[in-house]
Amino acid sequence: MPTSLILYELAGADPELRFSPHCWKTRMALAHKGLEAERRPWRFTEKQEIAFSGHGLVPVLVDDGEVVSDSWRIADHLESRYPDKPSLFGGEAAQPVSRFVNSWADSVLIQAISRVILLDIHGIVHEKDRDYFRSSREQRYGMPLEEVVSDREARLAELGRALAPLRTTLRNQPFIAGDRPLYADYCAFGPLMWARCVSTTALLAADDPVVAWCERLLDAFGGLARSAPSAQAG
Amino acid sequence: MPTSLILYELAGADPELRFSPHCWKTRMALAHKGLEAERRPWRFTEKQEIAFSGHGLVPVLVDDGEVVSDSWRIADHLESRYPDKPSLFGGEAAQPVSRFVNSWADSVLIQAISRVILLDIHGIVHEKDRDYFRSSREQRYGMPLEEVVSDREARLAELGRALAPLRTTLRNQPFIAGDRPLYADYCAFGPLMWARCVSTTALLAADDPVVAWCERLLDAFGGLARSAPSAQAG
Repeated sequence: MPTSLILYELAGADPELRFSPHCWKTRMALAHKGLEAERRPWRFTEKQEIAFSGHGLVPVLVDDGEVVSDSWRIADHLESRYPDKPSLFGGEAAQPVSRFVNSWADSVLIQAISRVILLDIHGIVHEKDRDYFRSSREQRYGMPLEEVVSDREARLAELGRALAPLRTTLRNQPFIAGDRPLYADYCAFGPLMWARCVSTTALLAADDPVVAWCERLLDAFGGLARSAPSAQAG
Repeated sequence: MPTSLILYELAGADPELRFSPHCWKTRMALAHKGLEAERRPWRFTEKQEIAFSGHGLVPVLVDDGEVVSDSWRIADHLESRYPDKPSLFGGEAAQPVSRFVNSWADSVLIQAISRVILLDIHGIVHEKDRDYFRSSREQRYGMPLEEVVSDREARLAELGRALAPLRTTLRNQPFIAGDRPLYADYCAFGPLMWARCVSTTALLAADDPVVAWCERLLDAFGGLARSAPSAQAG
């Protein structure tokens, strides 16, 4: 029996531009499991559209009627619900250790990338989301969006330093999970895909091992991420 | 047949004070495997004592005549040499993902702790190591040791922020590796044990989940780390 999967994804003014870092983690996880979902666009201010989930943020996955919010919980759900499909974690201990990578991506990496692309995001969100996006982010940072991303060279240097643990890891192995990508890789790739979707800024030097790793993940699953609508595609 | 294991560990003026973060990773790894080693004290300037290893740094493990340098390589060696003892990684994928934790500990965590304890280390190293330690570290930082650790409150705040990924992880599970500690935990614990060995400074608020996790690791293996000579013990 075919499964019925619906994924609510953050979209820009262009409904095909799906740019959330967390939704990208889920998108890669679904592809890893070989699962197809109906992907519904959602905007920041459409809180009532996902009110059924009990949360105000995407991704939200509806799997044969079962509602799962939060990209980590979704990965956990997919792993236990589809045990015969390729594992997202590669073993019992790898799952909690992968959570550390996810925690690092959600704090350090998203924070550092935000300081470069926040104004670009404002430029691509739906018109009805613009005021919400600006006011919520300006409240979070305590300054105008323009100021958050000022001094781009310094922000890019900070991002370069923030990536040190990933860079060192990738000098020793092709993926965070070793010889092939697993969910730990998608956790760190999501924020970099987010940047690719909204901004034309080159975040890293071309010879950075992180760039080569990104390229490998852009090629994964038949070029799923590379061919997705983005500021850098096509 | 009993194995013959010799571990060269960095020692202070007090030969029983074994304070290297990397040696602590190895110490915990040996205990995890249930292995006893003859632990030989080594000082920074005794390069000729470990010249046989081809490296100038400890830990160096001599396992039945086989020489292994570098704490990560030692963990890898122990895992493959002693497969019937408790696993350090908990599976194939967990080992490369644990390397990310080690890379984070070696860059972010050691860097942030250094800015608090560097002068304390100078105070506990052997007299013959003092000039070497001061000049090599002052060259690395481009400033006097006293300046590296100046503005302690700001340095402690930076360390608190640097620990965000670990703190978030530990809000969801008791150890990095899940329900029980594995090598990923020892990678992050080593730098915190380093601080405990040389400094009486409280690095973290008492209610920080990282503190509770440290306490659990201090208790591991019959209180191996807690009972070790340190600035904070006894």
